[in-house]
Amino acid sequence: MTDYFDDLETLDHEERERRMFARVPAFLEQCTSKAEGWARHLVGFDLETIQSREKLAVLPVLRKPALMAAQKQYPPFGDFVIGGPGTFQRVFMSPGPIWEPQGAGADPWNGSRALFAAGFRRGDIVHNAFAYHLTPGGLILDRGASALGCTVFPAGVGNTEAQVEAIATLRPTGYTGTPDYLKVLLDKAVELGADASSIKRGLVSGGALFPSLRQEYADRGVDVLQCYATADLGVIAYESAAREGLIINENLIVEIVRPGTNDPVAEGEVGEVVVTNFNSVYPLIRFGTGDLSAVLPGPSPCGRTNMRIKGWMGRADQRTKIKGMFVDPAQVAQLVKRHPEIAKARLIVERADEQDVMTLQAETEAGDEALAAKIAESLRDVTKLKGGVTLVAPGTLPNDGKVIADERQYD
Amino acid sequence: MTDYFDDLETLDHEERERRMFARVPAFLEQCTSKAEGWARHLVGFDLETIQSREKLAVLPVLRKPALMAAQKQYPPFGDFVIGGPGTFQRVFMSPGPIWEPQGAGADPWNGSRALFAAGFRRGDIVHNAFAYHLTPGGLILDRGASALGCTVFPAGVGNTEAQVEAIATLRPTGYTGTPDYLKVLLDKAVELGADASSIKRGLVSGGALFPSLRQEYADRGVDVLQCYATADLGVIAYESAAREGLIINENLIVEIVRPGTNDPVAEGEVGEVVVTNFNSVYPLIRFGTGDLSAVLPGPSPCGRTNMRIKGWMGRADQRTKIKGMFVDPAQVAQLVKRHPEIAKARLIVERADEQDVMTLQAETEAGDEALAAKIAESLRDVTKLKGGVTLVAPGTLPNDGKVIADERQYD
Repeated sequence: MTDYFDDLETLDHEERERRMFARVPAFLEQCTSKAEGWARHLVGFDLETIQSREKLAVLPVLRKPALMAAQKQYPPFGDFVIGGPGTFQRVFMSPGPIWEPQGAGADPWNGSRALFAAGFRRGDIVHNAFAYHLTPGGLILDRGASALGCTVFPAGVGNTEAQVEAIATLRPTGYTGTPDYLKVLLDKAVELGADASSIKRGLVSGGALFPSLRQEYADRGVDVLQCYATADLGVIAYESAAREGLIINENLIVEIVRPGTNDPVAEGEVGEVVVTNFNSVYPLIRFGTGDLSAVLPGPSPCGRTNMRIKGWMGRADQRTKIKGMFVDPAQVAQLVKRHPEIAKARLIVERADEQDVMTLQAETEAGDEALAAKIAESLRDVTKLKGGVTLVAPGTLPNDGKVIADERQYD
Repeated sequence: MTDYFDDLETLDHEERERRMFARVPAFLEQCTSKAEGWARHLVGFDLETIQSREKLAVLPVLRKPALMAAQKQYPPFGDFVIGGPGTFQRVFMSPGPIWEPQGAGADPWNGSRALFAAGFRRGDIVHNAFAYHLTPGGLILDRGASALGCTVFPAGVGNTEAQVEAIATLRPTGYTGTPDYLKVLLDKAVELGADASSIKRGLVSGGALFPSLRQEYADRGVDVLQCYATADLGVIAYESAAREGLIINENLIVEIVRPGTNDPVAEGEVGEVVVTNFNSVYPLIRFGTGDLSAVLPGPSPCGRTNMRIKGWMGRADQRTKIKGMFVDPAQVAQLVKRHPEIAKARLIVERADEQDVMTLQAETEAGDEALAAKIAESLRDVTKLKGGVTLVAPGTLPNDGKVIADERQYD
């Protein structure tokens, strides 16, 4: 029995790392020579030397606010794309707006591998309930399913009764869509007396799959796994039958960095997911997804050897308004750099007497009021706002990726 | 300057006919040997002899009610499709429901030629406002545009403000969608102060393009042409810059038949559009579209030599309820066959004294009350309903394809 999509999945991980980083210098050269945006973004770096994770970490992370600013200045793609209209099949609009071209090849968003791991096989009919309009959502798994040799029913969103009729007639073996909508379909089928029992598996994305819902699906005969995908990168990581974290897709370099910085966190620590792909149309180098996750140490029991991450753990973009002024995680990072004594810091925002109040919690080995006062001064310098400083012992701050914790109650 | 998509468009029409009909026997053999539905539908016919338009006309027209019945009996496709799931990329659901697979190849619905004739070229960005969900509407021209070398923005339906923002940023050169929605977009752009002036051409389908609206588009700098397409066949015919009727797509055999019958009408007479394709996945042999049109004699001034038809002239399916009983054009055809004296007939349905009343108008060279009485008897036999008969001179009945004219006022 074939349990793997290809041999890459069980490759020795050191060998995978070696192969991927061997490709990096030529990839960077291609990006900067063929796409002005990358040339501008990486100006001054010695790209030939980027041959390891450590070296890659010297390059700046490209985050969405910077990408959006570049896209406004050099529309539509900020010159981050290789080739003009006609060299790629489609262009999409994601909320922001952010503009994205469809990558090259039969499976431009690398969805096949995730579908395979979820049990989809050649000859299956797939009921695809992601939307095909404006954003690439629907086409990400539509193209992946086609490349795997499945036939897709492009159900899209809405028209639930028609979708149920299609399920009863076409008898798809699998569902792709958001975690919650499958329940809407199954419940509607019961209500209409329609047979939806052909659906044995699902690959869901775009929202949290709560354990109780996964169990309900299992009780109803549907084995549901998740993948983590974005409009710009496609499928970044996917679950396997082992259901222990999400396995990184092949041909991607994934890093977890401290929000607002370019710096990888220690293994296991929560941070922002940053991805480098090797796409020949829409190359992305240290692209900040804005999503929080953490590396899950060790390999998956299913035998796949690639790095694993935990699921989606929130948004890394913790930029918020305090007393009417924006404060960004990058400002907290700037402050930490000024004080080598600080191992890690977290800015707490609360309300007191109907006013915003902010306090910086700083992990330090040792420290006194004088240090706290100096840090408070830096805090004011950097944010233009007055705030308190509390020194805490190393390891005190929670491992949740939060650099700015907004604890104001909004309801 | 290249004015044609390929050499086929200017091929001598007799040669085109010769080539197409030379392919018919092998095509029919392929259909009946690989798809049980076609074997059942064409049982008893000597398929090797079908080598001309005249011979093709002996085969039965497959109409949607019969297709739907077959699809119910042999789901999902009535066994009219060659190959199972996985051999075609997608499957669609059209109102009925009718189930359709996506045909083979990079341009499964043959949209490229129509886009080319409407002025679309390699490297263009196309704003595609057809829906991609359930039915193949959106993908028909999406795939055609890709095959032509254009980049598609899959706008879909709705989200008008986002679509306008996309137009202002992506600066598409062309629009594809329904005839009316382009005006909604252009008006919204004016309202928002967004620049939609990049759109210079449009290819529209799925509804009537009224001459006044076409003129308004021209006045606003957009040259809009139409094509005639269906979910099962794709693009059947398209306009060229000559704007004289719609030119039949290549590799299709189009006939115009009397509604409810298998019989071609005389050239120029209005009837139902019946199409034979040469598709290797979803072969259709004398497929009744249910749409009315008529052949426009002679070739197009643009130099394309293929047969032309007038635009969409209504629905051929004139089946209606009279006094609570369904009456079908096929029943009128049956009656006409019983009386060789009748050249053409039309059943008029009206209201009198709050009752349904039907009258058969029959064109005859000569005739008396005795003939009228005999025809009235046949009318009752065939329809199980009593109705009047009026004999009229040949050429009296209007050329509008109507076999049953429902003249009851419903509002």
